[in-house]
Amino acid sequence: MKTPQEYIESLRKLNLNVYMFGKRVDNVVDNGIIRPSLNAVAVTYALAMKPEYGEIMTATSHITGKKINRFTHIHQSADDLVKKSKMGRLLGSLTGCCFQRCVGMDALNALSMTTFDIDRKYGTDYNRRFLAYLAYVQDSDLVCDGAMTDPKGDRSLPPHRKQDPDLFLRVVEERKEGIVVRGAKAHQTGAVNSHEVIVMPTMTMGVEDRDYAVSFAVPSDAAGVTYIMGRQSCDTRKLEEGTIDRGNALFGGHEALIVFDNVFVPRERVFMFREHDFSGQLVEQFASYHRQSYACKVGVGDVLIGAAQTAAEYNGADRASHVKDKIIEMNHLNETLYCGCIACAAEGHREPSGTWYVDTLLANVHKQNVTRVPSEIARLAQDIAGGLMVTCPSEGDLASPETGKWVKKYLQGRSGVLTEDRVRILRLIENLTMGSAAVGYLTESMHGAGSPQAQRIMIGRLANMKEKQKIAKKLAGVAGSVE
Amino acid sequence: MKTPQEYIESLRKLNLNVYMFGKRVDNVVDNGIIRPSLNAVAVTYALAMKPEYGEIMTATSHITGKKINRFTHIHQSADDLVKKSKMGRLLGSLTGCCFQRCVGMDALNALSMTTFDIDRKYGTDYNRRFLAYLAYVQDSDLVCDGAMTDPKGDRSLPPHRKQDPDLFLRVVEERKEGIVVRGAKAHQTGAVNSHEVIVMPTMTMGVEDRDYAVSFAVPSDAAGVTYIMGRQSCDTRKLEEGTIDRGNALFGGHEALIVFDNVFVPRERVFMFREHDFSGQLVEQFASYHRQSYACKVGVGDVLIGAAQTAAEYNGADRASHVKDKIIEMNHLNETLYCGCIACAAEGHREPSGTWYVDTLLANVHKQNVTRVPSEIARLAQDIAGGLMVTCPSEGDLASPETGKWVKKYLQGRSGVLTEDRVRILRLIENLTMGSAAVGYLTESMHGAGSPQAQRIMIGRLANMKEKQKIAKKLAGVAGSVE
Amino acid sequence: MKTPQEYIESLRKLNLNVYMFGKRVDNVVDNGIIRPSLNAVAVTYALAMKPEYGEIMTATSHITGKKINRFTHIHQSADDLVKKSKMGRLLGSLTGCCFQRCVGMDALNALSMTTFDIDRKYGTDYNRRFLAYLAYVQDSDLVCDGAMTDPKGDRSLPPHRKQDPDLFLRVVEERKEGIVVRGAKAHQTGAVNSHEVIVMPTMTMGVEDRDYAVSFAVPSDAAGVTYIMGRQSCDTRKLEEGTIDRGNALFGGHEALIVFDNVFVPRERVFMFREHDFSGQLVEQFASYHRQSYACKVGVGDVLIGAAQTAAEYNGADRASHVKDKIIEMNHLNETLYCGCIACAAEGHREPSGTWYVDTLLANVHKQNVTRVPSEIARLAQDIAGGLMVTCPSEGDLASPETGKWVKKYLQGRSGVLTEDRVRILRLIENLTMGSAAVGYLTESMHGAGSPQAQRIMIGRLANMKEKQKIAKKLAGVAGSVE
Amino acid sequence: MKTPQEYIESLRKLNLNVYMFGKRVDNVVDNGIIRPSLNAVAVTYALAMKPEYGEIMTATSHITGKKINRFTHIHQSADDLVKKSKMGRLLGSLTGCCFQRCVGMDALNALSMTTFDIDRKYGTDYNRRFLAYLAYVQDSDLVCDGAMTDPKGDRSLPPHRKQDPDLFLRVVEERKEGIVVRGAKAHQTGAVNSHEVIVMPTMTMGVEDRDYAVSFAVPSDAAGVTYIMGRQSCDTRKLEEGTIDRGNALFGGHEALIVFDNVFVPRERVFMFREHDFSGQLVEQFASYHRQSYACKVGVGDVLIGAAQTAAEYNGADRASHVKDKIIEMNHLNETLYCGCIACAAEGHREPSGTWYVDTLLANVHKQNVTRVPSEIARLAQDIAGGLMVTCPSEGDLASPETGKWVKKYLQGRSGVLTEDRVRILRLIENLTMGSAAVGYLTESMHGAGSPQAQRIMIGRLANMKEKQKIAKKLAGVAGSVE
Repeated sequence: MKTPQEYIESLRKLNLNVYMFGKRVDNVVDNGIIRPSLNAVAVTYALAMKPEYGEIMTATSHITGKKINRFTHIHQSADDLVKKSKMGRLLGSLTGCCFQRCVGMDALNALSMTTFDIDRKYGTDYNRRFLAYLAYVQDSDLVCDGAMTDPKGDRSLPPHRKQDPDLFLRVVEERKEGIVVRGAKAHQTGAVNSHEVIVMPTMTMGVEDRDYAVSFAVPSDAAGVTYIMGRQSCDTRKLEEGTIDRGNALFGGHEALIVFDNVFVPRERVFMFREHDFSGQLVEQFASYHRQSYACKVGVGDVLIGAAQTAAEYNGADRASHVKDKIIEMNHLNETLYCGCIACAAEGHREPSGTWYVDTLLANVHKQNVTRVPSEIARLAQDIAGGLMVTCPSEGDLASPETGKWVKKYLQGRSGVLTEDRVRILRLIENLTMGSAAVGYLTESMHGAGSPQAQRIMIGRLANMKEKQKIAKKLAGVAGSVE
Repeated sequence: MKTPQEYIESLRKLNLNVYMFGKRVDNVVDNGIIRPSLNAVAVTYALAMKPEYGEIMTATSHITGKKINRFTHIHQSADDLVKKSKMGRLLGSLTGCCFQRCVGMDALNALSMTTFDIDRKYGTDYNRRFLAYLAYVQDSDLVCDGAMTDPKGDRSLPPHRKQDPDLFLRVVEERKEGIVVRGAKAHQTGAVNSHEVIVMPTMTMGVEDRDYAVSFAVPSDAAGVTYIMGRQSCDTRKLEEGTIDRGNALFGGHEALIVFDNVFVPRERVFMFREHDFSGQLVEQFASYHRQSYACKVGVGDVLIGAAQTAAEYNGADRASHVKDKIIEMNHLNETLYCGCIACAAEGHREPSGTWYVDTLLANVHKQNVTRVPSEIARLAQDIAGGLMVTCPSEGDLASPETGKWVKKYLQGRSGVLTEDRVRILRLIENLTMGSAAVGYLTESMHGAGSPQAQRIMIGRLANMKEKQKIAKKLAGVAGSVE
Repeated sequence: MKTPQEYIESLRKLNLNVYMFGKRVDNVVDNGIIRPSLNAVAVTYALAMKPEYGEIMTATSHITGKKINRFTHIHQSADDLVKKSKMGRLLGSLTGCCFQRCVGMDALNALSMTTFDIDRKYGTDYNRRFLAYLAYVQDSDLVCDGAMTDPKGDRSLPPHRKQDPDLFLRVVEERKEGIVVRGAKAHQTGAVNSHEVIVMPTMTMGVEDRDYAVSFAVPSDAAGVTYIMGRQSCDTRKLEEGTIDRGNALFGGHEALIVFDNVFVPRERVFMFREHDFSGQLVEQFASYHRQSYACKVGVGDVLIGAAQTAAEYNGADRASHVKDKIIEMNHLNETLYCGCIACAAEGHREPSGTWYVDTLLANVHKQNVTRVPSEIARLAQDIAGGLMVTCPSEGDLASPETGKWVKKYLQGRSGVLTEDRVRILRLIENLTMGSAAVGYLTESMHGAGSPQAQRIMIGRLANMKEKQKIAKKLAGVAGSVE
Repeated sequence: MKTPQEYIESLRKLNLNVYMFGKRVDNVVDNGIIRPSLNAVAVTYALAMKPEYGEIMTATSHITGKKINRFTHIHQSADDLVKKSKMGRLLGSLTGCCFQRCVGMDALNALSMTTFDIDRKYGTDYNRRFLAYLAYVQDSDLVCDGAMTDPKGDRSLPPHRKQDPDLFLRVVEERKEGIVVRGAKAHQTGAVNSHEVIVMPTMTMGVEDRDYAVSFAVPSDAAGVTYIMGRQSCDTRKLEEGTIDRGNALFGGHEALIVFDNVFVPRERVFMFREHDFSGQLVEQFASYHRQSYACKVGVGDVLIGAAQTAAEYNGADRASHVKDKIIEMNHLNETLYCGCIACAAEGHREPSGTWYVDTLLANVHKQNVTRVPSEIARLAQDIAGGLMVTCPSEGDLASPETGKWVKKYLQGRSGVLTEDRVRILRLIENLTMGSAAVGYLTESMHGAGSPQAQRIMIGRLANMKEKQKIAKKLAGVAGSVE
C-alpha cells in the first residue's frame, strides 16, 4: 500500500491535461483550488496505515491474498459491505467533504460481476482481463475514477438519434490491438486526483446503440484525455490569504468534465464491447453499489451536527430546549441515513461471480433518503448557527487594525470563546450548507449515483407488489384471491 | 412446540378474570371481539410448524438445545436479531395487525441481561431463577405478556409522591415465600391471550421509590389479577353479521388494563426486588428490544400498500403517474422503516450475560421513524383509495334485496371486478387507517415501546456529541481543538 | 329565516326514501346515527338567530334585499367571501364535525355565474330560472345538497363508453314539461338533512357526453330518489347507551349514495341541458368555491388543539417543553390553513354575472394543504393524548360496580380532574382522529371538493409559468429572453 | 419622488465609513461587490416612476397628501397592507434578491404606533418628532435602514450583565441637545445603500436595562458610524470578468455590521428614551410588519420556479411527469407562502394611532413558513436543474479557444438552445440556492425578522387556547366545562 506521500508523488508523475478558468493548469498537485481535494483523497491512504483503522480501511485481496486498501477490494462477504459503509462514514467525518475514492471501488466491484456474466453468456474473456487489471490496481494502490455519466444533451432522444452522436461516449473505431473512443463524461468527482479512469455506459442501450455499450480503463493521462474543472460555490476562497473564510481549512472536493478525443484503448483494457444487453446490468450494479456509498454523507452530517452544537455553545444557546431538540432531530435524521447504508449491506448476497452485492431495493431506498435528509439537516444547522453565518465580516476585517477591534468586540460569543473560533465554526457551517462542501453534501447527495427519479424507478420495479396484493386480498377476504 | 390448536386449548384451561363493557367475559376464547386477536397469536404457532418458515420462526434453545419457537428464544447472535426483525415483518404482513407475542420475547431477553448484571453486583441469584423460568416457558411454548407501563396519574410527580401510591405497581408486603404486589399495568397488548405476565418497572426509580423497583412473573390467571378490556375503534363491527365491514376478516388485536390487587408472587418468580439502581437498565433494555420489534409495522405496511395498489386497479386508476408515484413513495417509506429494524439488529453486540443486544441508538432511531412514517403511508393509502372508503354503504345494504342492486350497479369498479371485492379492499384500508387495526398501525406505532419523546431523550443521550464536536473543530481550525 | 326547531320540523314533513344497514329508515329525523348530523346542520340556523354572530351568519339578499342566512347568499364582495371563510371556521369549531350546508351554498354561487354565461352565449334563460329558484331557497331558508360526484366505475373510460351508461348521471328522456334523469351521486354529505338536491356534472364533458352535461334541482323527496347511507368509523357507538364513548356528545356528519331512478325534473328547475362546453366551467367554479369551504377544517382543528391541550393538562404533562412545542406546531399548521381560505377570499374578484369569485389558484392551494395538514395535526394530537386514547375501557366499565372502582383509581390524571372527564377528552380525540369525525377531518379533507391530484392539475394550469420564465431569463442574462 | 439616477447621485454625496476585506471602501457606489445591491434598491425608485406599477408602488401621504413612494408610507387601510405584500412579491421577482428597502418602511410604521402610545401614557412628544421626521423621509424619498438586531454575545445573559455592556446598543450620555449612544447593530441589510439609520431595541427590556431602551434616527454618515461589510457566499464572483458565473447578472444584496462609536443623536431624532416598558411593543410591532415583509421571498420563489422550468426545457426533460409534478409542488409551496402574507394583511386592523397593523398571529405563521418552505423549493429546483449546476466549467472555459469548443459541444442541451444560455440558467439556480442570493432566499428567510423560535413563542402566545379548550370540553361533555 502507498503512503500518502507516495500517493502525492505518484500524481506528480502524471501528465494530465487539465484546464480551469479557461487556462491550462501546469502544476495540478499544488494548485490552490485542487489541492484540498487531493488532501481528502490522501486521507484514504493515511488511515490505511494506522493500526486503529486497519479493520475498516484494509482488506485481504481475494486474488493475491495480500493486504490491500479496502478501496481496491472486491467484497467477499456481507461483513465487507458493512465495513465499506463504515469506511464511508468515517472518511466523511474526518474530511467533512467528498473524498472521491469510492466511485472507482464501486466500478471495480460492478465489473467483477458483469464481466463474469458476459463471459458466461458469450464465452468472452472479459473477466480474466478484469482480474489482471484489478491485480495491477491493488498492487499499485491506485485511485480510479469511475466514469459513467454522459453529457446527454436533449434528454428526450436516444444516443444514436442525438443531435451530436458524441453526446454519449462511443466506439468510433475498432483496431486489431484495441478500440478508439470519443465522447465525454461529466461531473467526474476526483478526476484529476486519479491514476486511472474506468469508463462505463450510463444507461441501458438498445441494439441501435450498441456502439455506446462499451466499458474500459485508461490511465488518467492517456493521449486525448482532457479535464475541464467545474466551478464550485466559493471555490476561489481557497486562493485567498488566510484559512478562516474557506470554512474547511484542509479539505474539499472537485468535479471535472472529461473529454475523450479519439482515445485509444488497448484490447486488454476493454471490459465490455457492444454487448448492449449487459449495459443495463452494469449500470444497475454500479449504481447500487454507489448508492450504498452515500454512507459518506452520514459522516459529513456528523461534522455538521458537531459544528452546530459548537456554534450553539459559543452563542450560549445550547441549553435552550428548542436547540437541544433540533440537535436531536439532526442526529435522528443522520442515523436514519446510517440505517439505510448498513441495512443494504447487511442484507447483501453473493453473486455467481463470488462478489457480494448489496440489497438493491434497500440501496435505492437509502440513496433516495440521501436526496432529502441532508437538506433538512442543513436547514436545522443554519437555524442553530444564526444569521451571522452569512453576514460575518471577512478574515481580513478580523485581522485589520482598523476593524479587527470592532469585529472582536461585537462578534464575541460566550465568555472564554475566541471570536475567531466562533467565526471559524460559522464558516464551516457556511462551507457545508452553501459553500464548496455543500456541492457534495447537498447537490451531489441529490444527483450523485443517479438523480432521485432514478431511485424511484428502481424502487417501483423492485418492490414485490404481487406478494403484497396477495396478502391484502387474503386478509380482506377477496374471492378472487383464492386462485 | 405447541400447535395452534394446542395453544387455543391451553387458553381454554385458564381461569382469567376478564371484563368488557362493564361485564365479566365468561368465555374469553370464543368472544367475538377477542377472538380475532387470539387468531393472530395463533399464527405465531402455525408458522413455526411450517418448514418454509422454520429458519425464521424457530431457534435452538441455548439452555436446552431443543428447537423452540423464536418468540421464546434468547438471542445468541446478530443473525438471531436480524431474524427477529424478519419474523416481525412476516407476521405483520400475514395478520395485518398486532400479533402481540413480541412483548414477552423482549421481556425475556431484557431479563436475561439484567438479572445477570444484578447478580454480578449484589451476589443475588436472579439469573438462575430466570433461567429456570425460561426453560419452563420454552418447553411449554408459552405466550408471555410483558407488562411495563404503569398508569402514572399526574405525570409531574414521582411514584412515592403520587396522589395514590398504587399508580405505579409496587411491593406492599414481603413474606418468607414471596412478595405481595399491588398496582396496575395499562395498554397491555394481547394480555388475555397470554399464559404468563412478566412485570417490569416502567422507569428509573430512585431510592425513595425502591418498592416500585420490582420485576416478576405470574400466571395470567393468578389470584387477584383482573383484566379490563380496552375499546378499539370499530370494535363492535366484529360482532356484526358478515365479514366485509370488519375489514380484516380474520385478525385483530386487543389491549387491556391489568389490575394487580394484592397478588402473591413466589420468590422463585421474582427477578428484581428493590434493586432500584437496575430499574433504569431493565427499562432501557426492554425498550430497546421492543423498539426493534416495531419491525412488525413494516409488515402491516406491506398489507396497506398491497391494498392501495389493488384499490387503484379496481378503480382503473393504477396507470395514472401520480398513483404510481404514491405507491413508490409508500414503498420507499416502508422500506426506510425496514432499514431501521435491520440495522439496529445487524449492529448488535454481545453483552456480558451472553445475550445479543441491539444497537440502542439505532433501535431508538427506528422507533422514532415508526412514530411518523405509518401516518404518512396511511394518508397516501387514503389518497389512492378514494372517498368511497368512508362513505360506502354497509354489508347489509350490499345484501339487501332493496338496495343491493343499486350498490352493485353504482359502486362497481373496473369491468371484471366484483363490487363486493372492491368494497372488501376499501374496508381493509379503512380498518388499517381508521378502524381497529389503526389502533396498532398508527397509535401504537406512536406510543408503544415508549412515546416519541422517550426515543428523543435516548437519541440525545446516545449520540456521541463530543466526538462530533471534536472533528468539526479540527476541520474548522478552531484553536481550542488542539488540546 | 327558520329557527332550528322550524328546520327540524320541516325535515319531518319530507318523505325521504332512506336505507341504512339494508333496511328502510322510517323516521330519519330521530334516527340515532343520523340525528347528530342533523343537529350539526341545525347549528347553522341557531347561530343566524344570535345577534353576536349576525355579521358572519347572515347577509342581505341581492335579489330581495331581505336578511337571509349566509348559506343561501350569492357573494357580492370580497368581504362576503372572507365572511364565508370565517363562518366555516366558526361552525367547524362549534360542532367539531362537518355541518354539511356549504355544499349547497357553493352550488348556488357557481350556478349564479354559469347560468349567466350560458345565457350570454346561447340566449337561453337559465339565469332567470336560477334566480327564481334562488329566491325560493332564500325565502324558505332551505338546506340544499350540492350533488356533483358521479360513481364513475372504471376511471380510465369516458362516460359514454363506460360498461354501464348510468355510471355518470344523465338525461334519459326529454319531455315537453321537463326531463327525466338517471344515475347516482356518491359521497353526498348531509344528503338526508336537505330540502333540495342541486345536481351538477362532475367533469368536463365532450360532445359525445352531452347527455351527461346536465344541471338541475329537485326536492329531496322527489319521486325516484333513494338514499343509501354510508358507514362511518364507529358509527354504531351513537346507538350505544351513554354519551362518553361517542366522543362528540352532540354532533356528527353523514354521507349517502343518492340514486336517481328515472327522476322527472320540470323545465323551470333545469339550469344546464346538454351545453357540454359549459360543464367544465361549472365544475371548476363549484370546485373552487368548495375548496375555499374547507375553512371549516380550521375550526375542527381548533377543537382538536383544544382537546390535546386539555388532555396534556389532565395528564400533568402540559409544562413539558416538547408538549408546548407540539401545541405550537398544531396551531401553526392550523393557522397556515386559515391563511389559505382567507387569502383566496380576499383576492377574489367580480365576475360578469356580478357574483364574487374566489382566486382559483389560491383556493386550490388552500385545499391542497387541507389534504396534508390535518393528518399531521391529528398525529400530533395522538402524540400528546397518549396511548390511553385507544386502550381506554368502555363507558360501561367506568359505570360498572365491579370495574368502575379500578378504572377510576388507575386512570385518574392530575389531582382535581375527574377520571370521567379525562376519558371524555380522550374519546373526543379518538372521535376526531379515528372515529366518525375523522371521516370528515381526515378523509373528506383528502377527497372532498376533489382529490389531491385534481388540485395539482389546477395549480399546474393556473400558475403563470410564462411570466416566471421571462423574469428568470432576464435576470440570468439569457440572450433569447430579449425577444 | 426621486428617480433612480437621483437616488444614486444622492448616495454619492454621502460620506460613509465603510470597510470590506479589512480595507476602507472609498467609492461605495461603484464598488463591484456592493453595486448589485444598490441596483436592487434602485428598482424601488424606477418602478414607482412607471404608471403600470403606480397602484402598487406609490401611495398618498396621510400627512402631506402628496404622492409618495410606498416604502415611505404609513399604512392607512387593509388595502395598503395587501399592496405592501404585493409590492414585496413584485420586487422579489424582478430583482431575484433582497431589495433591502422594506426594513425602513417597517421601522417607520412601527414607530408611528409606538411613539403615539408612549405619548399617551407619559405625555411625551415622540409622535410629533416622529411625524416631522416622517415628512422629511417622504419628501426626500429616502432609504432608511431599520436597525434592530444587537450582537448579543452570550445569549444566556441579560444586557446589563453581559461581559461587555456594549453588546446591546445603549445610551452612554445624556446631553441637553441630545444623547450619545454606543454599540452595534448586526446583519444590517442594505445598510450602505441607505440615507438614514433608524435604531430600535432588539427585545423587551427590564428596568435594569432601561439604558438599552432607546430608539432614534441618524443620517447614515453620522460621525462615529462605521460599516463593516459581511461576506456572502460567492461574493467575489461579482469582481470577476464576465457576467455568467455571478448567476444574477444585475442584482444582489448585502449586509453589514454597523458600529456606533459614541454617536450623538439630537433630541428631535429620539423616539424612545428609557421607556423600557414600550421596548417590547416596538420590537413586536416592527417584527410583525417585517414578518409580513417576507412576501418578497414569494417573488424570489417565482424566479427560481421560472429558472427550474427553463432548465428542464433546455434539458428536454420538461415533459417528464415527475418534473411537471415537482414544478407544481414548487408553485404550491410558493403560493402557500403568498397566502400567508396576504392573509395577515387582509386581516389587519386599525390601531389607536390610526396606523393599520397586520394580524400578528398570521404574520408570525407566515414568517414561520418562510423559515421552512424556501429550502424545500430550493431542493426541488436543484433536483430539476441536475448536477451540472455545481460541476459546470467557468465562463472562462466557455470563452477559451482551447476548451470552449468542448464545453459548447458537450454541455449543449436541447437543439436550438445555446449552451451559454443553458449555463446562464444553471448559474442563476446556483446563485439562488447556494450563491449570494441564497443568503437572502434561504438563510435570511430563516433568521430575518426573528429566528424560527421567535415566531413560535409568538404563536404560542397569540393562539387563543382558552377558547379552544372551552369548545373542546363542551363537545366532549366535560362536566367542568359548564362553569
